[in-house]
Amino acid sequence: MRAMKRILIVATGGTIASLPQGGGLSPALSGEELAAFVPQLDDLCELSIVQPMNIDSTNMRPMDWLRIASMIEGAYDDFDGFVVLHGTDTMAYTSAALSYLVRGSRKPIVLTGSQQPMSNPFTDAKLNLYQSVLYACDDGSRDVSVAFNGSVIAGTRAHKQRTLSFNAFTSVNYPPLAVIRSERIIRQGGGASDCAAVGGDRRAAGDCLAVGRGERAAATDGNATAADVPARRPDFYHELDERVIVLKLTPELRPSIFDLLRRDYDAVVLETFGIGGIPEYDGNAYQRAIYGWVASGRTLVITTQVPEEGLDLGVYEVGRAYADHPGILRADDMTTEALVAKTMWALGQTRDQDEVARLFYAPVNHDRTLG
Amino acid sequence: MRAMKRILIVATGGTIASLPQGGGLSPALSGEELAAFVPQLDDLCELSIVQPMNIDSTNMRPMDWLRIASMIEGAYDDFDGFVVLHGTDTMAYTSAALSYLVRGSRKPIVLTGSQQPMSNPFTDAKLNLYQSVLYACDDGSRDVSVAFNGSVIAGTRAHKQRTLSFNAFTSVNYPPLAVIRSERIIRQGGGASDCAAVGGDRRAAGDCLAVGRGERAAATDGNATAADVPARRPDFYHELDERVIVLKLTPELRPSIFDLLRRDYDAVVLETFGIGGIPEYDGNAYQRAIYGWVASGRTLVITTQVPEEGLDLGVYEVGRAYADHPGILRADDMTTEALVAKTMWALGQTRDQDEVARLFYAPVNHDRTLG
Repeated sequence: MRAMKRILIVATGGTIASLPQGGGLSPALSGEELAAFVPQLDDLCELSIVQPMNIDSTNMRPMDWLRIASMIEGAYDDFDGFVVLHGTDTMAYTSAALSYLVRGSRKPIVLTGSQQPMSNPFTDAKLNLYQSVLYACDDGSRDVSVAFNGSVIAGTRAHKQRTLSFNAFTSVNYPPLAVIRSERIIRQGGGASDCAAVGGDRRAAGDCLAVGRGERAAATDGNATAADVPARRPDFYHELDERVIVLKLTPELRPSIFDLLRRDYDAVVLETFGIGGIPEYDGNAYQRAIYGWVASGRTLVITTQVPEEGLDLGVYEVGRAYADHPGILRADDMTTEALVAKTMWALGQTRDQDEVARLFYAPVNHDRTLG
Repeated sequence: MRAMKRILIVATGGTIASLPQGGGLSPALSGEELAAFVPQLDDLCELSIVQPMNIDSTNMRPMDWLRIASMIEGAYDDFDGFVVLHGTDTMAYTSAALSYLVRGSRKPIVLTGSQQPMSNPFTDAKLNLYQSVLYACDDGSRDVSVAFNGSVIAGTRAHKQRTLSFNAFTSVNYPPLAVIRSERIIRQGGGASDCAAVGGDRRAAGDCLAVGRGERAAATDGNATAADVPARRPDFYHELDERVIVLKLTPELRPSIFDLLRRDYDAVVLETFGIGGIPEYDGNAYQRAIYGWVASGRTLVITTQVPEEGLDLGVYEVGRAYADHPGILRADDMTTEALVAKTMWALGQTRDQDEVARLFYAPVNHDRTLG
């Protein structure tokens, strides 16, 4: 008989763990208590549970991302997969951050949570927890993803789209990795994808290469579990630069904003109009402000406030001046959540603008497809 | 025979008017040239065309909103409807702004544009222009709306969702007013809605009341055109406070941002997490910063970065402290574009916080349904 997979649940709080308190819902249940609500998990795997924090994900911050990543790093060799229980509000930021902090993991790291607390009679928490563990146990799963409401989304492509409904998350500018119908995981083409070596190499089609069933089967053949066939360890990172701010262009927003932000920020993620428009009025004051910002050694990431279909600075005259300027990074079709995390990660590794650009443009966990 | 409706086209530039230039696409065609591409318009109405500007909508700013509103005000009695040709990138901001600057118009003010220039052989411009004029000619149409790709959206509910596809706009948290299939305008229930008196009054269900066909028919019976049966004029406004900035909360964004913004801004529209979460870490530093901001007489509008289903500050402990604090405005289910325009408009009329709140919470052109 094949040994059961060993899964580590990293419980961090969030709605899934919340109970009504005096001032509204707040996290209360432990990871053990949550798992006890879903006894069906016992048939899937051997579960272990750790609880590095028990917080509303509104309060989740980069130092917490590092703690979660570090906990996964410490336990990596002892488990076959990881399920992170997390509030929905910042789950997309955390799933993106973990994608950069734990690069190229052959073992799945699955984030989930719920729109209603586990204790609510109509909760979505039980199914989300069950399906996340199911996905974490599957041989075809790897890297960081969000499993929610029967859909599995690459960790860099999740976006919270709805504040109330169970289908809270969408997969932005990239197809979902899988759908889960009850106990069945359905992937496009029926196969899996295998992450290639990460680091300096960059492939136009993304950082993952498809492998045949034979190769994958060889790595997990027979009764083997992770402990028997050591997987190549991912690259773990331990530094982030938190001084990153998102700025949404609005009509008449003054270019002087870049002066104001110099004190406290190393990078601005600028959500421009449409496919990449930045105003030219007032003697091209924006261009001067932006060129000045990057000339000071700071970073500017240009993206769009339009949710779908991404950025192209080459189409309109108003975007051209920024398309090829040194120190300016193009977001292409990345999400704002991934841009914040990737910029924090890249600036955490180096302050050299060319090296930041190299790290930024290297695709990670399906985060960008254009450019 | 019934006289033809008289429609004023206000051409402002945008992709619809663009031609390839040296540095990319930029506006070139005049309103007359655009109309000449769609000779079918001659069967619909008597067209007049004015051209207050010919710019990429990236460069459209509050002073331009005021010019467009002023042009409509000057021509209001001479026309039955207005079609504003506009770039898509900031169209949702302009349609929201016009909703506040021209309140309660019984004559339709319809914005449209295109994703591909009029001169492109596969353009969406011809159909969008034709259907916009068709909608502006219909007796059931009124107030400010965006007509695009066969869908008509309240001017306060439009959001540019896609940078490339023809279905560029979505109607956020509110059903589309109508769909247009070829030459047929399909409204829910087959009827129209009639805007009630605007100004101080506020109704929970919105600011529009349904009227029977009889009442509407009486106003436009027989051969009557606008010149014969003078419609009650809308309320026109002429002041905006441009010192409004949108700030997106991201993990670890420092509360000191409110100090930085004091110099140049009177209002912040804060895109919080989820249903209304603001971090509590660092000794509740955000709460102190936000209370200080509004105590200085400035305005804070709390909204969410989650696109659908709106805000509710009462659900989670992390939101409660802001739900009922004087000087803090709740966005409920309004769009960020409408919030920017409505805040600029309200602060343009008064600096009294209570009066700002009264103007802000009064529903205008279907802009909010919760709260």
